[in-house]
Amino acid sequence: MNRLPALMFAAFSLASAVNAVAGDPLPTWNEGKTKHSIVAFVEKVTKPGSSDFVPVAERIATFDNDGTLWGEQPMYYQMLFALDRVKALAPQHPEWKDKEPFASLLKGDVKGALAGGERAMLEIFMATHAGMTTEEFDKIVKDWIATAKHPVTGRPYTTMIYQPMLEVLAYLRANGFKTYIVSAGGVEFMRPWAEKVYGIPPDQVIGSSIKTRFELRNGHPVLVRLPELNFIDEKEGKPVGIQQYIGRRPIAAFGNSDGDLQMLQWTAAGTWPGLAVIVHHTDADREWAYDRTSNVGRLDKALDEANTRGWTVIDIKRDWKIIYPFEIR
Amino acid sequence: MNRLPALMFAAFSLASAVNAVAGDPLPTWNEGKTKHSIVAFVEKVTKPGSSDFVPVAERIATFDNDGTLWGEQPMYYQMLFALDRVKALAPQHPEWKDKEPFASLLKGDVKGALAGGERAMLEIFMATHAGMTTEEFDKIVKDWIATAKHPVTGRPYTTMIYQPMLEVLAYLRANGFKTYIVSAGGVEFMRPWAEKVYGIPPDQVIGSSIKTRFELRNGHPVLVRLPELNFIDEKEGKPVGIQQYIGRRPIAAFGNSDGDLQMLQWTAAGTWPGLAVIVHHTDADREWAYDRTSNVGRLDKALDEANTRGWTVIDIKRDWKIIYPFEIR
Repeated sequence: MNRLPALMFAAFSLASAVNAVAGDPLPTWNEGKTKHSIVAFVEKVTKPGSSDFVPVAERIATFDNDGTLWGEQPMYYQMLFALDRVKALAPQHPEWKDKEPFASLLKGDVKGALAGGERAMLEIFMATHAGMTTEEFDKIVKDWIATAKHPVTGRPYTTMIYQPMLEVLAYLRANGFKTYIVSAGGVEFMRPWAEKVYGIPPDQVIGSSIKTRFELRNGHPVLVRLPELNFIDEKEGKPVGIQQYIGRRPIAAFGNSDGDLQMLQWTAAGTWPGLAVIVHHTDADREWAYDRTSNVGRLDKALDEANTRGWTVIDIKRDWKIIYPFEIR
Repeated sequence: MNRLPALMFAAFSLASAVNAVAGDPLPTWNEGKTKHSIVAFVEKVTKPGSSDFVPVAERIATFDNDGTLWGEQPMYYQMLFALDRVKALAPQHPEWKDKEPFASLLKGDVKGALAGGERAMLEIFMATHAGMTTEEFDKIVKDWIATAKHPVTGRPYTTMIYQPMLEVLAYLRANGFKTYIVSAGGVEFMRPWAEKVYGIPPDQVIGSSIKTRFELRNGHPVLVRLPELNFIDEKEGKPVGIQQYIGRRPIAAFGNSDGDLQMLQWTAAGTWPGLAVIVHHTDADREWAYDRTSNVGRLDKALDEANTRGWTVIDIKRDWKIIYPFEIR
């Protein structure tokens, strides 16, 4: 019986983590111009009779994933997944012992493996992401995400998501917005957990993809993942992917790197009012600080354009009271 | 004042055309095994506690368009759109006078133009579907669909939709299903009117597509439609497109031709109960009758497989009281 208060507290924490719409919709945001610009936008486009009113069907909001909804340091989490998969698959590939980039990877020399540049990365991706059915890959991702730990914090990756952004997702949805992920990450890498973690269902996840082939295996239909690129959802690809999947232009978009620039331009230039937001990683103590010269999530041209055009720039150090949901107490 | 009864009657007709959920959900369907198989499926997957219960999130239903939701005779309506566009664009293309397939087309010789086979069709499609921005194409389609008339009936194309299928769409949605179009037709050809006509929003329309390119024109971002195929949403492409866009397997699928066979196989083979339905065009008096030898909407292998596997086959002549919404009185 004495567990009741703890249970009630846990329930309260969960509720505030997922949905803090009553009262302050963005409770882990410090007061200031950033929070104000988001709230002011939502209030004006949802106010009936206002000249800025946007019908519910047009309330499309798109979010980059890496560095915008969850972390991306010390390298993209999907890359860490691929490296873990190389280790797991090594026993089935004795030839990798003498073949780069696998040989270096298996010796623990990630830097050496990636010295092969884009070609090496593509080889690692195809060796770990293709060759199985879509259902098999779904299970591989679910098993990994349930057990893998971040190399710096030791925490599960799905806990290293940004609490203030979860509040933005919930706030927008409570105001009739449909929220989408638009990420350079693999669409089939994100879908298995995005619904549980972000409340974003599979058909609202847009990402990069490889080709698949329909096959009947003993009369049973499967989709086989092929080692062939289908679509790169990055830079100019983001507006292309948005049009291809959604067929409507977003009125709000959130990104954190130059890979998001064209999505933000596309969103800001629509006929409805448009909100373009950049997450600027400025907090080396609580998270990471990086921008113009980073290899991961480089933010350079998009930061200049944000300043020129008056887009909203989130300064994590200044604007966010906490970073992760597990900090809520 | 004496117009009131007529107005009330019109309002009543509209309501029954769009949504006949109260009472009989499928009022223009004759009683019999076809109607029963659809209703029995919906009832079993939505009955809480039943072993066949399917959670709302998994209630995905996919519909082919040509020959399943609207007509496709004497040829696919998008082909008729392309032919109309060739005529409209001819003044800007004096060279077409001496260049096939355009020369024959402009003389009214459609058969001669299409004698060039797939290559001729592709040339006509690219000349009429590429080269403009996505917004310009959207407007072209909307203008055409608002004014063009069917060559046999003289009626607008969007009135030549199947009333019994509108009832199925409404019935499924009223039972928590998300309804999608999965068509070999162009996705950007269907989206401009599918929401108004079928209640299916742009992000639930999956179709064939050409590539687009993001460009800044005097600082203004546009997406330009390129004369290059991106994806053919037909046969083996339908399950591929479903996985790519939706990321979930349908539990109900409706088609009418061999182009839908793989979508039906994919739907029937899921872990949830699956409903696979074929519209068989059997009514030469009220619509058209065609199947195994037709050039448009050929239904041969899929009809055999439907019989073998016990899929639901709609016999239009037997199962539908009326064909089109305008027949409602």
